[in-house]
Amino acid sequence: MVPHTLRLGGVYAPLPTAFRADEALDLQELGLNVARWNAEPLAGYVIGGSTGEFPLLTPQERLEVLRCVVHERPAGRTVIGGASMESTGATVEMAIACSEAGADAIIVVTPSYYKGKMTAAALVEHYRMVADASPVPVVLYNMPANTGVDLPVPAVVELSAHDNIVGIKESTPDVAKMGLMIHLCSPGFAVLAGSASVLLGALAAGAVGGVLALANLAARPLARLTEAFGRGDIEDARKTQLGLIEVNALVTERFGVAGLKAALEWIGYYGGPVRHPLINISPAEKEQIRAALVGAGLLS
Amino acid sequence: MVPHTLRLGGVYAPLPTAFRADEALDLQELGLNVARWNAEPLAGYVIGGSTGEFPLLTPQERLEVLRCVVHERPAGRTVIGGASMESTGATVEMAIACSEAGADAIIVVTPSYYKGKMTAAALVEHYRMVADASPVPVVLYNMPANTGVDLPVPAVVELSAHDNIVGIKESTPDVAKMGLMIHLCSPGFAVLAGSASVLLGALAAGAVGGVLALANLAARPLARLTEAFGRGDIEDARKTQLGLIEVNALVTERFGVAGLKAALEWIGYYGGPVRHPLINISPAEKEQIRAALVGAGLLS
Amino acid sequence: MVPHTLRLGGVYAPLPTAFRADEALDLQELGLNVARWNAEPLAGYVIGGSTGEFPLLTPQERLEVLRCVVHERPAGRTVIGGASMESTGATVEMAIACSEAGADAIIVVTPSYYKGKMTAAALVEHYRMVADASPVPVVLYNMPANTGVDLPVPAVVELSAHDNIVGIKESTPDVAKMGLMIHLCSPGFAVLAGSASVLLGALAAGAVGGVLALANLAARPLARLTEAFGRGDIEDARKTQLGLIEVNALVTERFGVAGLKAALEWIGYYGGPVRHPLINISPAEKEQIRAALVGAGLLS
Amino acid sequence: MVPHTLRLGGVYAPLPTAFRADEALDLQELGLNVARWNAEPLAGYVIGGSTGEFPLLTPQERLEVLRCVVHERPAGRTVIGGASMESTGATVEMAIACSEAGADAIIVVTPSYYKGKMTAAALVEHYRMVADASPVPVVLYNMPANTGVDLPVPAVVELSAHDNIVGIKESTPDVAKMGLMIHLCSPGFAVLAGSASVLLGALAAGAVGGVLALANLAARPLARLTEAFGRGDIEDARKTQLGLIEVNALVTERFGVAGLKAALEWIGYYGGPVRHPLINISPAEKEQIRAALVGAGLLS
Repeated sequence: MVPHTLRLGGVYAPLPTAFRADEALDLQELGLNVARWNAEPLAGYVIGGSTGEFPLLTPQERLEVLRCVVHERPAGRTVIGGASMESTGATVEMAIACSEAGADAIIVVTPSYYKGKMTAAALVEHYRMVADASPVPVVLYNMPANTGVDLPVPAVVELSAHDNIVGIKESTPDVAKMGLMIHLCSPGFAVLAGSASVLLGALAAGAVGGVLALANLAARPLARLTEAFGRGDIEDARKTQLGLIEVNALVTERFGVAGLKAALEWIGYYGGPVRHPLINISPAEKEQIRAALVGAGLLS
Repeated sequence: MVPHTLRLGGVYAPLPTAFRADEALDLQELGLNVARWNAEPLAGYVIGGSTGEFPLLTPQERLEVLRCVVHERPAGRTVIGGASMESTGATVEMAIACSEAGADAIIVVTPSYYKGKMTAAALVEHYRMVADASPVPVVLYNMPANTGVDLPVPAVVELSAHDNIVGIKESTPDVAKMGLMIHLCSPGFAVLAGSASVLLGALAAGAVGGVLALANLAARPLARLTEAFGRGDIEDARKTQLGLIEVNALVTERFGVAGLKAALEWIGYYGGPVRHPLINISPAEKEQIRAALVGAGLLS
Repeated sequence: MVPHTLRLGGVYAPLPTAFRADEALDLQELGLNVARWNAEPLAGYVIGGSTGEFPLLTPQERLEVLRCVVHERPAGRTVIGGASMESTGATVEMAIACSEAGADAIIVVTPSYYKGKMTAAALVEHYRMVADASPVPVVLYNMPANTGVDLPVPAVVELSAHDNIVGIKESTPDVAKMGLMIHLCSPGFAVLAGSASVLLGALAAGAVGGVLALANLAARPLARLTEAFGRGDIEDARKTQLGLIEVNALVTERFGVAGLKAALEWIGYYGGPVRHPLINISPAEKEQIRAALVGAGLLS
Repeated sequence: MVPHTLRLGGVYAPLPTAFRADEALDLQELGLNVARWNAEPLAGYVIGGSTGEFPLLTPQERLEVLRCVVHERPAGRTVIGGASMESTGATVEMAIACSEAGADAIIVVTPSYYKGKMTAAALVEHYRMVADASPVPVVLYNMPANTGVDLPVPAVVELSAHDNIVGIKESTPDVAKMGLMIHLCSPGFAVLAGSASVLLGALAAGAVGGVLALANLAARPLARLTEAFGRGDIEDARKTQLGLIEVNALVTERFGVAGLKAALEWIGYYGGPVRHPLINISPAEKEQIRAALVGAGLLS
């Protein structure tokens, strides 16, 4: 492992996975979607995250998706591969496979099945073993809404000292936690917001960007928000931020990946079905999403 | 009820209640503390909040404390009385009594004992009945960490249209929720952060200030943060913000009111004991608080 | 304090409080209800519990209700007064007042507003101070669904050694917890189930009875269950038990006290309204309760 | 799919998986352990449950373990294979593979990563698709402590009508839920307790047995409990039950699989390490387990 030169920052889209009607992978539609996202102002792509339905794909499928995106992405756009597995050993294998598939970094969600045993010590050991073995830098991923596990600040601080751990995607809306991590972690450790609804608050706390499901639909307003914040125009940044919260809630908490895929269809991307046990949303719910897209200025 | 002219904004301190060693009210020490807080840059005081140990006082004691603070406060400093009771009828009586005691407004936490029944409809009806009857404006108070009840955004939006409901103290760290309320509520409805650790994020989302336990100890840095934010100096605001999160956690989540009272003693105020069933903290814990105060530049 | 001779056991009804249409106490209707309950096979009454809407009454009203029931109850029927207050000092005062009002014992729910601070140590100290001062024996009351606080087994074991603490109403459905308390607590310490739906399981674990909201409606089947269990006829006890779970869920978790009051009206008692912030149930919901009463054989 | 003839009942041991020091599968030690369990009074084995660390094994390893146990088990002892995967499609594949490996039935835990989307409708659809495709009968598996998902009673009732769904392992301690399922589900639907600490309460409610981690250590006392209950000797059953709760808590909630493996070593089985991210317990904790085994009469 040589010292990495990866520098995280900006808005990353955690790409959804394209399925055919029979729930098989559709790499062709995925590739066409990536070509569309390539035209959007994004810092990079995250593959194999919650939005990508990673727990519903086999490891082989996850790597196929990753290779497809690596192949399609333009120069200069970072691809972060999802290496999350429940066991540490399998995560290490997946980290290596992601690296071989061309990922610039990997992202690893906290293991969660044995939630009562996922103490700070267990999580630190897990991430250390993964980071020691991963050929590419590691991004921590905290997502209590899905995992029921909350990676505590002292564990993050300890892990931030590891040469091969470069940041965290923090998916709670708790900007105090983000601020404290930024205050205490090793310099250069990147905190990325995990929800578009708190992007401004996260930036204000010192986050360097976000991995945002909404970025699949709204890369431009999110870039505008980031730029406005960067030049100190908080009023403009806030205006953009406030206009995105409702639609973001619909395509994340409320309807989840099925909602996001419906929204993608409204704006001209391939959406397609989710995989079972997830279930697709109703026509009335799709209409509700259309209205929210219009309300947010993402669709006319 | 005549249209109110109260305009909320800035940093409010939710005052702790002074007790003697035998747990009896100590209005003399409270008065002396108020004289000290009067010299600090604060927009006003909140009496009978969680920091004031309101559930551990009788209604009569709560009014005594309120009258004491009203008497001591300087002109131009708002006093918000805590009228929270479990029953709606008792809350109405308390609202009237607070008004008679000189409160400029009242603050009312969500009832919480029957948490499974505190639906949006029940909460809206509760607050409406209180606001209809209260001689002074009403501030909503959402504090799930203590109540186990989370006042949902649609209920807040509906209530914000009431002439006599002027704002909310939102004590979750969720700046997305704050942003959404600001986006959807009636113009002029004031959102106040409930934790000093998210003040900057809340201001960025459009909050007008906060009711912050830490303001009892750190009014000046909090004012500096607010001012820096106001003039667009986010970097300076952030620096102040990040330096306050650890000490704030100690005197709120970690050690609660007992921690805050210990901290007050370190900086020259009267602290005194908490009332049972709360228990005082140990000398080692007091030392931990001292170190955090020093670390935050609040004590030399 | 002289050693008590109270011996808990059997089924106790936690009485609901009768209100007039304007939500004022209606002691006359309460008295008439008590006369009806007197004809039912019950070991006693609990006043001022969750079913009695205790947090929505003033301390004075709670004592009026207690005095009314003490006056109406027949010889040999135990009356347990609810002395729960948030502060330890107020609980002690209420314990003394309940004793003076004629209560044979008091029941005290865990304080809960400062839930993060209600450690085992704080709760043990609270109950010790109350038990030291109470003229009548103390029953612990664990009700996490309402309080968000769970009194842990080691605290109960420690408290069971106190001369003036005679038992616990355990309102979780966790019969393993009940069993462990029975195994570890001082001999004679009475564990009472807090839900009619687990009565059989609790008895099997060694509980001596229950304080059961459903006992207001179904004292006879609950007595039948208890008797069948006592003579070793598990099949019969189970048959009764299984037939009561649905209706019990409706008048507790699902519709709460408003549901119980509606059910009381169906079987010929006075029900009346609940106090705000609780809200009454709809005609359709009342019909649902009627159907469940019929289904359980409590109404024809 | 032909109508199944499997009849569940009695105590099943969910077998832990044997690993070598380097965390590789150790099928030899597993086989030796199975030979020991064969001498114990057990109705059968569950492979690939939480106790088997199934999320930490690859699907291939899970099948290897299953084949090993099928090979070693004596005639008449049921083997239930764990087919749980996050996606419905992968679960179907695993169900078929388990059947081919010789499982008499499969057990499937609720999918859980997208917990906010695991509505009753989604879970019913998942289980229906699995049951439609599985060559062997399906046992539902509810385990909220690990999954954060609670399979609701109406969903279980609906699923109990499926020809190929024969029962549920219910791992909450809620005997009211068990009772309600028994009351409402199709005749013959088997409810199995998931914790040894509530076995007696579950049997009283009509459960036909349990899948109990403790059965790996205490098959005989659990059989004694079941037999005593069967002949109506509740006192004897309770005595056994109460003596097992503490040790059971240690090898499940408190120390989890690592605790169970340590306990196995104390009583002469192969224990071995857990797989990361799980971590092994300390010598002091092992000693605590030894003391509890002695206390429960499982070790002299």
